[in-house]
Amino acid sequence: MNINGRHFRTIWPDPENRNKICIIDQRQLPHQFIIETLTCLDDSIRAIKDMHVRGAGLIGAAAGFGMYLAAINAPDHGVDEKLEQAAILLNRSRPTARNLGWAVERVLAAVTKIEDGIDKKKAAYKTACEIADEDAAFCRQIGIHGLELIAAISKKKNGKQVNILTHCNAGWLAFVDYGSATAPIYAARDAGIDVHVWVDETRPWNQGAKLTTWELQQEGIANTLITDNTGGHLMQNGMVDMVIVGTDRTTHTGDVANKIGTYLKALAAYDNNIPFYVALPSSTFDWELEDGTDIPIEQRSGDEITRISGMNDKTGEIETVRLVAPGTQAINYSFDVTPARLISGLITERGIVQANKEAIDALFPDKTKKLTQG
Amino acid sequence: MNINGRHFRTIWPDPENRNKICIIDQRQLPHQFIIETLTCLDDSIRAIKDMHVRGAGLIGAAAGFGMYLAAINAPDHGVDEKLEQAAILLNRSRPTARNLGWAVERVLAAVTKIEDGIDKKKAAYKTACEIADEDAAFCRQIGIHGLELIAAISKKKNGKQVNILTHCNAGWLAFVDYGSATAPIYAARDAGIDVHVWVDETRPWNQGAKLTTWELQQEGIANTLITDNTGGHLMQNGMVDMVIVGTDRTTHTGDVANKIGTYLKALAAYDNNIPFYVALPSSTFDWELEDGTDIPIEQRSGDEITRISGMNDKTGEIETVRLVAPGTQAINYSFDVTPARLISGLITERGIVQANKEAIDALFPDKTKKLTQG
Repeated sequence: MNINGRHFRTIWPDPENRNKICIIDQRQLPHQFIIETLTCLDDSIRAIKDMHVRGAGLIGAAAGFGMYLAAINAPDHGVDEKLEQAAILLNRSRPTARNLGWAVERVLAAVTKIEDGIDKKKAAYKTACEIADEDAAFCRQIGIHGLELIAAISKKKNGKQVNILTHCNAGWLAFVDYGSATAPIYAARDAGIDVHVWVDETRPWNQGAKLTTWELQQEGIANTLITDNTGGHLMQNGMVDMVIVGTDRTTHTGDVANKIGTYLKALAAYDNNIPFYVALPSSTFDWELEDGTDIPIEQRSGDEITRISGMNDKTGEIETVRLVAPGTQAINYSFDVTPARLISGLITERGIVQANKEAIDALFPDKTKKLTQG
Repeated sequence: MNINGRHFRTIWPDPENRNKICIIDQRQLPHQFIIETLTCLDDSIRAIKDMHVRGAGLIGAAAGFGMYLAAINAPDHGVDEKLEQAAILLNRSRPTARNLGWAVERVLAAVTKIEDGIDKKKAAYKTACEIADEDAAFCRQIGIHGLELIAAISKKKNGKQVNILTHCNAGWLAFVDYGSATAPIYAARDAGIDVHVWVDETRPWNQGAKLTTWELQQEGIANTLITDNTGGHLMQNGMVDMVIVGTDRTTHTGDVANKIGTYLKALAAYDNNIPFYVALPSSTFDWELEDGTDIPIEQRSGDEITRISGMNDKTGEIETVRLVAPGTQAINYSFDVTPARLISGLITERGIVQANKEAIDALFPDKTKKLTQG
């Protein structure tokens, strides 16, 4: 995707020194565009945990490169041991994110089958790059499949603007490129369809307000910011044609963990007979879970609710203000689970599939077989 | 209710000069406790429109005193004319608020039947005071009736803590005293029941974060602040025993306009079989509307979403920060409508009633009769 007309991915090895991994520090957006360099496992863990990078696919890619950075900082004879430790630490950093564990396992699997320490490090690099490339490619495919849904609505509306509501940021900033929920929107724009996006601000971290609006503006897509409270009212009044969201972990049976508040939007869409789609690369499926209530839900600091940062236009500085009285207690769950019954379909790199075990199995026999045999 | 142990109402005539009406400037809470004085109609309109005062009952009381201030600033022979103009201006200030029009009409009715200009002014004062006193008295009654519901849950839980979720501020700060949604909570506390309140922060104006948590803390009621996105997750996980909210306008048929996002919580409560109650004095009923979709929905500035104010603990100043990139468009609907089918019951000053026309008619035959005869 483009920033000020120049193409960027969200994570990339420094072309002059591949031992340095570059990311955009998303905590500073939209106020400052800062590229940060990660050079060791600790850098990677901090970047994931403190949300310099966030979003399903990007957490996966960052974990892949984190494993690589762990490998290159290990002695040649101790790569496996170092990576096993790294896997444990990375997995702990964001408990709900399925792509994290998936990427860590993929690097581990690629490295452990190789004998030589130096070759292991090369394999870690190659695998991390593959994870990132595949993420971008899969998101592009998601866009192609999701485009069909938007095109059908546009046709039904005789070419009138299609209004899509999204929650959080499942845009290119959440992946390596294109995004999951946004990929069909970008594809629709490219196909000449008139689209407009309702962007939930997505408290407490405000991914929608800070990232999604900025990303869509950079790409010239019409969008309007709303509070998370607003979607139901818009749906009741015929102002939303479809909902597309991302997911951080989706069970084998179609239950979807996504940013807290997604469940409320799914309920409203269902109540108003509005299609509710979830876009995801297959790397986000948890093939071992049968029930969404078993998905671990990350809890973050209450300070993310009671304090907020933004640009003080008087001083030109980013400042933090306290929104509540001293001593106010806040609890901060980062995700909720939307049951499969509320979901119209899953948009994956292989096509659109109903949110149930049979349909998912049929589209991904290679993945599910592995589980059954395992 | 108490602030630092001292009893306050939210609006009162200055005891030394009843031509000055005192309010708490709620825009400054919880950071600063500032008492503001209103001396003319313009002051009252600004206080209502810019939300120095807000909340169903308090808007009604402020409108009543606003009519009084309009009357005393009119020549003795021109009170009626002045009040008719004042009524139009006040009614425009917050379009969804039913108590506003109700209070304005009540003062008009009381004044127009009197001949003498000076007596008209006295009648305006008397009626404004009656509106305020009645609001407090009705909220106290709401507390007594709502207590039964909480007591029943407490008993079912063998005295374990009862968890009540509320949205926005329907506390004493939204009325003259006690509040609507909070009145049963205060009554439960007084009855020795262990209660805990989940407080939706209530974007964009953050009435929950700024007012409800502060009010509950002042009264020593256990509470936890959550984002508006969180209630569904809590309900799915058995962490909410009941929901109580207020309302700005409720139709004759039980459809409820309340702060934007209320509908989403009602859907989640319904989906999880959790009781969802709306507390209101009868002054909030709109006896002329049969369908909630006819309720006018106020739209406020998008700046309330894109900018936020809070305490900068480094400077000790209240500062405003911008949360989004320059040029970000935001739309700000202040209310939504929860259909009667999602509501377990209405807690009124006369008792608890089902949210349907027949039941409401049966409890308020004097009100509905007036409409039928009119």
